Amino acid sequence: MTPFPPAGAAERTVRLRVRYDEVDGMGVVHHPNFLVYFEIGRTEYMREAGVRYADLERRGFLLVVTAASARYLANVAYDDEIVVRTALASMGRASLRFAYAIEDSKGRILCEGTTDHCCVGPDKKRPIRLPPELARLKR
Amino acid sequence: MTPFPPAGAAERTVRLRVRYDEVDGMGVVHHPNFLVYFEIGRTEYMREAGVRYADLERRGFLLVVTAASARYLANVAYDDEIVVRTALASMGRASLRFAYAIEDSKGRILCEGTTDHCCVGPDKKRPIRLPPELARLKR
Amino acid sequence: MTPFPPAGAAERTVRLRVRYDEVDGMGVVHHPNFLVYFEIGRTEYMREAGVRYADLERRGFLLVVTAASARYLANVAYDDEIVVRTALASMGRASLRFAYAIEDSKGRILCEGTTDHCCVGPDKKRPIRLPPELARLKR
Amino acid sequence: MTPFPPAGAAERTVRLRVRYDEVDGMGVVHHPNFLVYFEIGRTEYMREAGVRYADLERRGFLLVVTAASARYLANVAYDDEIVVRTALASMGRASLRFAYAIEDSKGRILCEGTTDHCCVGPDKKRPIRLPPELARLKR
Repeated sequence: MTPFPPAGAAERTVRLRVRYDEVDGMGVVHHPNFLVYFEIGRTEYMREAGVRYADLERRGFLLVVTAASARYLANVAYDDEIVVRTALASMGRASLRFAYAIEDSKGRILCEGTTDHCCVGPDKKRPIRLPPELARLKR
Repeated sequence: MTPFPPAGAAERTVRLRVRYDEVDGMGVVHHPNFLVYFEIGRTEYMREAGVRYADLERRGFLLVVTAASARYLANVAYDDEIVVRTALASMGRASLRFAYAIEDSKGRILCEGTTDHCCVGPDKKRPIRLPPELARLKR
Repeated sequence: MTPFPPAGAAERTVRLRVRYDEVDGMGVVHHPNFLVYFEIGRTEYMREAGVRYADLERRGFLLVVTAASARYLANVAYDDEIVVRTALASMGRASLRFAYAIEDSKGRILCEGTTDHCCVGPDKKRPIRLPPELARLKR
Repeated sequence: MTPFPPAGAAERTVRLRVRYDEVDGMGVVHHPNFLVYFEIGRTEYMREAGVRYADLERRGFLLVVTAASARYLANVAYDDEIVVRTALASMGRASLRFAYAIEDSKGRILCEGTTDHCCVGPDKKRPIRLPPELARLKR
């Protein structure tokens, strides 16, 4: 896995608090929920760049997830604060990759990962060019 | 809360196994998930009566939840088997009420509850008459 | 259902944004998630009163949910902001009731409900007296 | 990603039906839920090999997830049937890797992936040797 953030990539962060429903029987965040944190991370990354993902979808541009990966390095418990750091790793004509590092409040890395996205139309299948305003995600 | 099943109501059952993601930090099913079990219960109740809810939605009949209640009587852990018993409590022109009892494999009641539904059109707001085949849910 | 907030009860609020994973195939918040919002509401209510629920659990006081009810009045979509208003409806020797009203950003009520709680020890069964600091929840 | 199943590996399958709560606003399974399906797949793989994961945890052997990856190839909707195929990809002294392929009822691959696990003790941190009965997972 490449180091975070990828070379030259800007990053944006969002702080969250672990919810009761996100924790499993071991008392720590259940691992699929980190993909949900990634999703919140990229939603806020986009918002800070002036792109509201909900509006993109309404206009018929869906950024479906084509791949996801995560490495889990440490546990985190209910009600702890976490920081989701998100960076744009790459951008193609119809595709995007985001990278993530999730830390606890002391800066210890809990989870690192990536998600790949393809832009599709309302049929949820045919790739289409990214809408031009996504260029804003690059800086 | 009325006894289960409501007088004169037929009931149908579905057996499930508690999943890892449904359990909370106390090691028992997290209470909102019982509403998910209710939902599975009524989906299977309808299917056994010859009505596939997914098809209803496709045809523009949505049975939105207008109220839900649950009483929690005992805990259940990961990988335990549960039985969801579902009955149709009442049916109006555009509305339905289901009642539920969820038991463990020894017949101990874990949770009882009800959900109220209103049939709406694709706008998700305006009540519309229940489609005629829902009469099959009654026996 | 009694009006919100119950007479004489203080209320506290928390603002949330609807997450992508909370929405169902109709494009609106899936109804069991309102119980999760209630849970976040009472966690923050308690925190503002100086009681961290995670600490209570660590000390062996569990506020298990014994009943929950919700009335659903309007839909809310992904990325919309919601306000969770929480009030303490009643408090006994070993039990509590919270009441909730969830609104969208324009003050339209989306969902109202209550949860009942019993304080139990680490066995998750035997009721025990509420710890004295919960008196702070009253004002 | 290696082809499924990995060379020489046995596979076991479990059939599931997509639940209403697993679908997102696009009307298809929300991508983090495939990690939940993987989890169900390996639980049933282990059960068929005579190992109940819930019992392992009770005895103090936790198979924490250290990495997960998924490639998403096609969408699947509410109430559709899916088949989770699970294979043991590798096993070390304290670690395991499972591989997965999830198909729809026509054999079309929806998602492929892997999860890596480390066996830890009740502290959820220190790696410990896999319990001997996990050798049964190999055939």
